[in-house]
Amino acid sequence: MSHPRSPVKEQILEAATRLMQVRGYHRTALEDVLRESGAGKGNFYHYFHSKEELGYAILDRLVRAFTERTLDPIFGSPTRPPLQQVDAFLDEILAIQRARKCVGGCPMGNLATELADVHEGFRQRLARIFDLWRERVAGAIAQARADGTLVPEADPDGLARFLVAGLEGAILLTKVQKDIRIMETCVGELRRHLGLYLATSSAEEHAPPVGGPR
Amino acid sequence: MSHPRSPVKEQILEAATRLMQVRGYHRTALEDVLRESGAGKGNFYHYFHSKEELGYAILDRLVRAFTERTLDPIFGSPTRPPLQQVDAFLDEILAIQRARKCVGGCPMGNLATELADVHEGFRQRLARIFDLWRERVAGAIAQARADGTLVPEADPDGLARFLVAGLEGAILLTKVQKDIRIMETCVGELRRHLGLYLATSSAEEHAPPVGGPR
Repeated sequence: MSHPRSPVKEQILEAATRLMQVRGYHRTALEDVLRESGAGKGNFYHYFHSKEELGYAILDRLVRAFTERTLDPIFGSPTRPPLQQVDAFLDEILAIQRARKCVGGCPMGNLATELADVHEGFRQRLARIFDLWRERVAGAIAQARADGTLVPEADPDGLARFLVAGLEGAILLTKVQKDIRIMETCVGELRRHLGLYLATSSAEEHAPPVGGPR
Repeated sequence: MSHPRSPVKEQILEAATRLMQVRGYHRTALEDVLRESGAGKGNFYHYFHSKEELGYAILDRLVRAFTERTLDPIFGSPTRPPLQQVDAFLDEILAIQRARKCVGGCPMGNLATELADVHEGFRQRLARIFDLWRERVAGAIAQARADGTLVPEADPDGLARFLVAGLEGAILLTKVQKDIRIMETCVGELRRHLGLYLATSSAEEHAPPVGGPR
């Protein structure tokens, strides 16, 4: 994004993000973006050379919003212990879907589904974005392993991938079934899954084991 | 599907399924389906009243194929113990993504992402399809609980939802990153997750616990 932020540019981005979230990338026509934003064609081409460039700017905007509103406050907390950061992250994703009444799904997951196999530029950007989230979650898991909350066998990257995948799948099923309980169930199981890797010393203050005696 | 199967109808369905898998529902134009299938417009309207009806027939066809090739052979096995059926199901989904070289994603997940918020008829059908898969997985988990392999606390429906969600999310991330190891990691964690609910008596013949002593 080489241009400084401007009201017209923001209006275009806002309208386009809203439209794309419902219709997807390909079905969002430039004319609709202009009509919804009230911007003229000249305005548009002043800020974006193409629809593709608009799409990339929307990705940047979505990532920035998610980082500022969710990732940074949760994983940047200086006082919250790392495993509680992961817990808070799971709760936050659940809360977002609840607030959206199971409508819209994950904006990144939607674009990934539509574009990963047909547009290499978007695929690469989306892959980096999912990596970014995984790294934040993996960082907290690595810290929890280092401070002895989790056992040495806990693989931060693998577990973080699994958490992101579980959340993406849960968001998708919740959107299809329009039932927030699916999201609640999956978040509960993901939390329980982390419990698998709790060190003995910390197991009691976190979730108790599910099954019978081991 | 009120018409008996015919070669022309099958050609139309095959071409449309192929196109829709890459482009999605909305971006698959009738003209392209006709060109790819070699069918005429008259042929098409003999079998389908609308693109919507074609879409529903494609869903039916995808479900039938998945049921016949994957669900029935695995969950209908008279000799394989129920928990091994779930294991085999996880392996099969992994094998499918490996064979497809991480391209295409889940046909149902793709359609669900595109249509769940904009077409209520598709949403309802897709919701029933995901329910159907969940029920097959839940049935095996319920049997494993009944025969004492899993503890009474294991909730067949909740766990089955979690497995389906985990697989859908894993398929999506695998498609974005083009890396089958993501799928392998997630399937490994899902299998380990079921281990959480193993009864003591059966815990030793299945996966060992991950963490330190409990």
